[in-house]
Amino acid sequence: MADEQQDPCPGPLLIIGGHEDKDGERAILKALARLVGERRLVIATVASHEPDGYLEAYQDAFRDLGVTDLVELYVEERGDSARDEALRKLDGAGGVFFTGGDQLRISSQIGDTPLERRILELHAQGLPIAGTSAGAAVMSETMLVKGPNATSYRIGELHMAPGLGLMRDVIIDQHFAERGRYGRLLGAVAHNPRLLGVGIDENTALLVENGCGTVLGEGAVYVVDGHGASHSNIAEEEAERALSIFDVRMHVLSSGDEFDFERRRPKSGKHWDDR
Amino acid sequence: MADEQQDPCPGPLLIIGGHEDKDGERAILKALARLVGERRLVIATVASHEPDGYLEAYQDAFRDLGVTDLVELYVEERGDSARDEALRKLDGAGGVFFTGGDQLRISSQIGDTPLERRILELHAQGLPIAGTSAGAAVMSETMLVKGPNATSYRIGELHMAPGLGLMRDVIIDQHFAERGRYGRLLGAVAHNPRLLGVGIDENTALLVENGCGTVLGEGAVYVVDGHGASHSNIAEEEAERALSIFDVRMHVLSSGDEFDFERRRPKSGKHWDDR
Repeated sequence: MADEQQDPCPGPLLIIGGHEDKDGERAILKALARLVGERRLVIATVASHEPDGYLEAYQDAFRDLGVTDLVELYVEERGDSARDEALRKLDGAGGVFFTGGDQLRISSQIGDTPLERRILELHAQGLPIAGTSAGAAVMSETMLVKGPNATSYRIGELHMAPGLGLMRDVIIDQHFAERGRYGRLLGAVAHNPRLLGVGIDENTALLVENGCGTVLGEGAVYVVDGHGASHSNIAEEEAERALSIFDVRMHVLSSGDEFDFERRRPKSGKHWDDR
Repeated sequence: MADEQQDPCPGPLLIIGGHEDKDGERAILKALARLVGERRLVIATVASHEPDGYLEAYQDAFRDLGVTDLVELYVEERGDSARDEALRKLDGAGGVFFTGGDQLRISSQIGDTPLERRILELHAQGLPIAGTSAGAAVMSETMLVKGPNATSYRIGELHMAPGLGLMRDVIIDQHFAERGRYGRLLGAVAHNPRLLGVGIDENTALLVENGCGTVLGEGAVYVVDGHGASHSNIAEEEAERALSIFDVRMHVLSSGDEFDFERRRPKSGKHWDDR
């Protein structure tokens, strides 16, 4: 009986910057396969307006990684998120994987519904949740919805919205170096440095367990910490002026490096593949 | 006679991130026009393999800004950089403006020649020097030659070379946010944090006078300070691994903000246009 009285730990989060390798090394999908084991993996394609083909692509990608029981979770309309049909997909699941598309579709279609509550509940009891691209962005408490790529941040140019809140006190951006999103992540952090900015490159992921993230994949994860910022013009200036922010701390982490979210400190580690 | 014994101050540097506005507000070209006054402006097109049209474009752009005496300085071959014909172009000049192209063409064709020595000498005596794009990159002691855009830095992926050394202890990158060059500037700084990384957006410039830079134009200037970095993997890792570097300090400066290069400190200021 002692076992049952222990508080369960929340499950791991695998936050992927988009375009994870699906037919080569598959370091990131392998990590997810290890978490799921022989259980069912739920492919939540809710972010997409046209979800055809996602399930099949991941079935192919996971086939020889030992994960063979994949089901698709899609909601056409918000009302579907209260239906048993959707909820039953989660029965006995070993993991949920949110695929790419539009993060606002995830939050608007399942936010504050029985489906979302069930997912959060299962995660709190230990279920691993993975998300790529839009599925990564939606994990944070406040999420980035839209903002310019490849330009410096201009005041007023960013759309944020409440995310699923699987991870608190961070804001996640993806396709990070590839789409030149430093400017908008710095802009997001300037809004409220309570949030740590986390930018994840393509084919790169952050595996978060017990408040600590480990990087895997081929790119980098950027952590932007505005706690010590000494100046920002974000509340003062006209919309067309570029952002100023001084004394931001930045960490660039690559495969194997870790980040302790509670202490806000990085730690260098061995390349994930060499472990 | 007292006047002649005073040590002259080096002239201002106007370091432009490329694509400066040539037919609208022209905030950056106006700043150069103010420095040059009614004197001659030397358009040094040395960076270009095909310099046709540069002089005419700048003649048009400067016409109603009060700078009407423009001459082109081009060297076809390195040997030309020792010729009187080239040196005479600098007589009575009120400014030299290095236009865009390939920074390696500037350093290889005029580096360590009488032409370069004459330019450095005039600058030391107060001559303003401007440079855009390649002409900006070449100003630093060590310059960035080539490196990937829109990706995180991978060890070994960067080409650097000696620049003209008009500015010491910095390394300059241009087209900064537009081409997603954060990764490579962080990589450059990781090589030796003695160098402060300075990334300049398009249609944005840093006007450096007496060791202090002021931002003008529409974008931002990023200063990457690796002095306090607590870890970097740049000397340890295999070439294909992404860069790790922890505890980098970053400042994002916009129009009117200043940076004191000696103290390595930013200072907020009023929008350049509102002055």
